[in-house]
Amino acid sequence: MIISNRVKNLHPYVPGEQPKDRVYIKLNANENPYAPSPKVQEAVMDFVKNNPEKLGLYPDPDSLELHAAIADMLNKSGGVLCRACFEGDEVHPAEQDKIPFTVTPDMIYTGNGSDEVLSFVFYAFFDSSKSFVMPEFTYSFYPVYAGFYNIPMDQVPLKADWTLDTEEMLKRAAKNQGGIIFANPNAPTGLGLTREQVRQMINKASSDEIFIVDEAYVDFGGESCIPLLAEFKNLVIVRTFSKSLCGAGQRLGYIVANPELVNIVTTVKNSVNHFPIDAVAQVSGTAACRDVPYYVETSRKVAEERDKFYNFLQDKGFYVLKSETNFIFAKHPKISGDELYKKIKEQGLLIRHFATKGIEDFVRITIGTAEQMDELRAAFESVLK
Amino acid sequence: MIISNRVKNLHPYVPGEQPKDRVYIKLNANENPYAPSPKVQEAVMDFVKNNPEKLGLYPDPDSLELHAAIADMLNKSGGVLCRACFEGDEVHPAEQDKIPFTVTPDMIYTGNGSDEVLSFVFYAFFDSSKSFVMPEFTYSFYPVYAGFYNIPMDQVPLKADWTLDTEEMLKRAAKNQGGIIFANPNAPTGLGLTREQVRQMINKASSDEIFIVDEAYVDFGGESCIPLLAEFKNLVIVRTFSKSLCGAGQRLGYIVANPELVNIVTTVKNSVNHFPIDAVAQVSGTAACRDVPYYVETSRKVAEERDKFYNFLQDKGFYVLKSETNFIFAKHPKISGDELYKKIKEQGLLIRHFATKGIEDFVRITIGTAEQMDELRAAFESVLK
Repeated sequence: MIISNRVKNLHPYVPGEQPKDRVYIKLNANENPYAPSPKVQEAVMDFVKNNPEKLGLYPDPDSLELHAAIADMLNKSGGVLCRACFEGDEVHPAEQDKIPFTVTPDMIYTGNGSDEVLSFVFYAFFDSSKSFVMPEFTYSFYPVYAGFYNIPMDQVPLKADWTLDTEEMLKRAAKNQGGIIFANPNAPTGLGLTREQVRQMINKASSDEIFIVDEAYVDFGGESCIPLLAEFKNLVIVRTFSKSLCGAGQRLGYIVANPELVNIVTTVKNSVNHFPIDAVAQVSGTAACRDVPYYVETSRKVAEERDKFYNFLQDKGFYVLKSETNFIFAKHPKISGDELYKKIKEQGLLIRHFATKGIEDFVRITIGTAEQMDELRAAFESVLK
Repeated sequence: MIISNRVKNLHPYVPGEQPKDRVYIKLNANENPYAPSPKVQEAVMDFVKNNPEKLGLYPDPDSLELHAAIADMLNKSGGVLCRACFEGDEVHPAEQDKIPFTVTPDMIYTGNGSDEVLSFVFYAFFDSSKSFVMPEFTYSFYPVYAGFYNIPMDQVPLKADWTLDTEEMLKRAAKNQGGIIFANPNAPTGLGLTREQVRQMINKASSDEIFIVDEAYVDFGGESCIPLLAEFKNLVIVRTFSKSLCGAGQRLGYIVANPELVNIVTTVKNSVNHFPIDAVAQVSGTAACRDVPYYVETSRKVAEERDKFYNFLQDKGFYVLKSETNFIFAKHPKISGDELYKKIKEQGLLIRHFATKGIEDFVRITIGTAEQMDELRAAFESVLK
């Protein structure tokens, strides 16, 4: 046969649908309802206007300017945008988010979306001869990478309250010696571990055990583990421009880790695609990181709408998890997740339902603008009537 | 240890240097000296101006508009830009390049540069249990992918005249049953096989043997194998926007193949990164494909400068291969490749030298604008004096 054996067992990732039959309000892919900062728009237009020749030349393979801008943003914001404070362009982290060291550009690696970054992280740190540990319900791309690189996985059920079973994860990790990955806050639950909980986990593990913490959603109210990088050399934090930085269309994700681990991922990148970040994305990403106040405001607005919608769902009799992200995971005692998803879709709004055993009763709802959430509430009212 | 076993044996790709100590004329990375069409610039600026919100939403994972534009460009040009004819916006392929069928969008797959595309092609079609066949001297990323995915390779020496030893390649492929890849025209030699030569190769092989033909440079004067897709279901053609389409900064590469093979590569993509092509690159790529006349002209100018420089090198006593690409591979009987590279660099121009046994006497020179080539000729004159 023409195709390789490894292809035959692939089970590709299935993202939120993008149907084209009509215009929907899309609350099914955890996108940010706000456009990037006008300064991003301006920077890209200036760049393309003044440097068209740069579209024709290979971009900086090391994305140095972008890495410096990311490090600067993290230092200013403390890595949790919705809690950072600002006056004019002056930004300060909230007390609880202060990073006790300066994040330097050599602690940053960027890739073509955090999906590509995660793929390289799996390649770099998980071995085919040992199982890595992950929660049973988490970002559904992790098992896909495991299949892609032929890495055995050890999935640990969540606790009854849908939080991570950190004790059991540690137990299995100690046995397997193959590393741990989890999203914090987790998806699709929206629940997070505190930094102190993560610290205790890493403290209890061998220093040879790699910890991958995926902070895609942390800017909406979680606790970042960046401060822990001063203590632990076995920690890799993965983050993205697709959520709080309103940049899903620009395909940018990044790692924050100690330089030794950043270098390993860079070696992996240079073995597949030396230039994954195009010239325009380097410019747009840099401009985003330089306008922290904009994203502090948009993250806050999303967090506010989330908490408002949480109350709405509770009032409507839903079982709702207390989200620290830009989405809410909830189920109704009387209407199935699938039915709810379908009926809301009929009303012109897309929310996400996973036909996965164990979470099939739930829907995952991305938080939109105040106006979009008004429409969603109206749709829920009408469906639940 | 924290890093995976597979990482320990990686030998990353080394691209042409991008030194920052002074301004160089860069003729070492086979970039195109011309900026993309002004219509690309315009399309990107319009898009970002009018749709900033699209920078924040996941792009079309299937790049449908881009794929349609690529198919259309190939149908109009015959797949070899420098020979296509045009009057106003009307483009026609040269007689020898006519494709005897219509290339349809489902025959196109796009990725984040042809490097990423090639990586997925290796994953999809080459197996770890069988050696694939490649020429000894060709695009130096192929052995890197082989190492990355742990695929054994069987490298066939070039013939004395630096052309591919197609007989030996077929013999080894018949024995290994693991597929074949070569660049056509080849790099760094610049020499190509005719379409008829490739047809005879595929005809002699089993229909289960995959043929990957990398046509990165074909637009400057090679013969495209796209017409062969009507005859062969085991052929995948890889192409790029980084050379003739003046788009290295935009990171776009593509495949032309029958839909069954395109679907396999799409499955691989969806197992790593569902959205490798960002929103802006989809727009810029589409706009490029819609301005074929611009690229016909720039490709022709490059080909003309190449032939002029070929004559210059011959006059100067170089052994020069007759390139069908945007670069020239040559050696001088008296000055070593390394010395020549260094002395030209002192003059402020970068050309490429490979410290690889067997080709260490050569330099590879990317063709620039007429003005850049004047400067290069002056530098050569001064070095050879």
